[in-house]
Amino acid sequence: MPTDTQPNNDKTGVTTNTESCGSGLQLSEFGLIGRYFNRASQHKGLIKGVGDDCAVINIEPHMQLLMTVDTLVEGVHFSPDVQPDDLGYKALAVSLSDLAACGAEPRYATLAITLPQVDHDWLQMFSSGLFELAGQYNVDLIGGDTTRGPLTVTIQASGVAPHGQALLRNGAREGDLIYVTGQIGDAGLALQSNLNQLNYNDVTIHKRLNRPEPRVQAGLELRQLASACIDVSDGLLADLAHILKSSQVGAGIELSRLDLSESVRRYQEHTGRLDFAVTAGDDYELCFTVPPEHQNEIDKLSRQWPFHCSLIGAIDHSDTLTVLNNGDPLEIRHQGFQHFS
Amino acid sequence: MPTDTQPNNDKTGVTTNTESCGSGLQLSEFGLIGRYFNRASQHKGLIKGVGDDCAVINIEPHMQLLMTVDTLVEGVHFSPDVQPDDLGYKALAVSLSDLAACGAEPRYATLAITLPQVDHDWLQMFSSGLFELAGQYNVDLIGGDTTRGPLTVTIQASGVAPHGQALLRNGAREGDLIYVTGQIGDAGLALQSNLNQLNYNDVTIHKRLNRPEPRVQAGLELRQLASACIDVSDGLLADLAHILKSSQVGAGIELSRLDLSESVRRYQEHTGRLDFAVTAGDDYELCFTVPPEHQNEIDKLSRQWPFHCSLIGAIDHSDTLTVLNNGDPLEIRHQGFQHFS
Repeated sequence: MPTDTQPNNDKTGVTTNTESCGSGLQLSEFGLIGRYFNRASQHKGLIKGVGDDCAVINIEPHMQLLMTVDTLVEGVHFSPDVQPDDLGYKALAVSLSDLAACGAEPRYATLAITLPQVDHDWLQMFSSGLFELAGQYNVDLIGGDTTRGPLTVTIQASGVAPHGQALLRNGAREGDLIYVTGQIGDAGLALQSNLNQLNYNDVTIHKRLNRPEPRVQAGLELRQLASACIDVSDGLLADLAHILKSSQVGAGIELSRLDLSESVRRYQEHTGRLDFAVTAGDDYELCFTVPPEHQNEIDKLSRQWPFHCSLIGAIDHSDTLTVLNNGDPLEIRHQGFQHFS
Repeated sequence: MPTDTQPNNDKTGVTTNTESCGSGLQLSEFGLIGRYFNRASQHKGLIKGVGDDCAVINIEPHMQLLMTVDTLVEGVHFSPDVQPDDLGYKALAVSLSDLAACGAEPRYATLAITLPQVDHDWLQMFSSGLFELAGQYNVDLIGGDTTRGPLTVTIQASGVAPHGQALLRNGAREGDLIYVTGQIGDAGLALQSNLNQLNYNDVTIHKRLNRPEPRVQAGLELRQLASACIDVSDGLLADLAHILKSSQVGAGIELSRLDLSESVRRYQEHTGRLDFAVTAGDDYELCFTVPPEHQNEIDKLSRQWPFHCSLIGAIDHSDTLTVLNNGDPLEIRHQGFQHFS
């Protein structure tokens, strides 16, 4: 049942201090957005940020606007014992990863956060993690809504790309090469490790789960080279399948070409789950396709990236995704996650 | 503790059907966004809506982009027995009300919805309510994220206004007249009535709680007349105080000038709570200030509106908000809501 409070919003623009307003009226506003999430703007296009009913933004005429939204729910996407700064970082990272997949330059974000109660230390840490990443990619937090309820964080991120240059899922064509950035499976293994108390003292995999690095720079550099791109959040096979469906093509990939961390490699060998890395998800790497004439440019580009980039297969004219491991067809046990099942 | 599922997202662009992908791989995606929330676009500026990592949008060069975000949480902002179509309608209405307050023409919305389980009848009704209002104001749903967890609905709405014409809170000047659209207090009374089982068989007040009408058209028409504007979501006094603080001015208002419904008037007289209507909130009317030279234009305009518009006071050079009722200073019992208190 609802409490008899009025709607419990702390919208952008809410005054932050208790203020005397005559007639004995004291306006006590919590002002969490103003207190924890109002920082100086990085972009001259931001005309009005936190502090009104809406943010007001100028977009350069040659730019298109790109938007994405992601929600993280306690107990589903993160454990109740998550570090608040890691949560703030990751909540923004997953949205920046979507912008990266589209080749967008990140600009703005709004934050809708639902909290069971106000814990100032928690909010301080959460915002510091969020702004650590926001600062890295010049993202302005331009508005938000704080509400009371079970812990849930929704971030909508906006970015820009020159007209017609956004990377979409539907551009893959027969003969295009399929690449994946970085190492996949680490975040999934860290999650397994947390859940099953496996003994993986590999701090890297836990960092990959808690603080994924959105591949923003790679996305920008791929803009005029890749024919299609997606970020690997649901698991490589599931996400590549999205490209295939959108592009109405098929593909064949060879898993032995993937760059896997030593921990993931050991886990797969130990458990026999050779499909673990490609179905685990939460990687926030980019999977993209490239016309063969751009292969040299990709080789050159990716040598400058601080992470590996693997050529794992090619688009074909079939309507299926064929998955091989050292030449043998791979039996897929886990098909990415199931929604609400 | 988290379940051992992988992150449970149904992002924009997720494929909607079970799809055979070779090697025995079945990709079963729930595709709730695709199934319930993917409709034809109203705007030629929408290049890519639901169906990719990001939506892609063109904004006309002479337009500024306006954005707002609002969350509704079950048990806080709405009762568990809310009608799903009313909830879908209201979730969008509260965001369109923010756009209205800024004089923006609504264009796009994203939906982040967290659901305890999939109930197709519920989703069908929720989406029908949402699209009923979206259709009325030509709003395209351009993306979303469905997650599992306690019922929470976050909508970010975007609109446009010609450069420099957005209505903000900070433009009120000494001598400006203060107006409020429509009748306030109805939604608050309906909420009281639900909670305390008061006998208010006035269907209008319940409709005002469940299906507030965002004053979009009024906001557009006020663009070159009003000096400041806000929507009344926290209660008239609290929201007017936001204008005063942003504009660094004071004001005096006379409550007897407000247009109140017969039910609210009776409730206030019966209970002696003469500040009920101005503190109840959830009204989604507009409170705006107008330089006196535009008074005639406002009179003319508002005669065409299908709701009353009340001139309730004026901006002054004080730093307080003076509230009178029939000339007597009003004692304010309830100061709008308190956050997390």
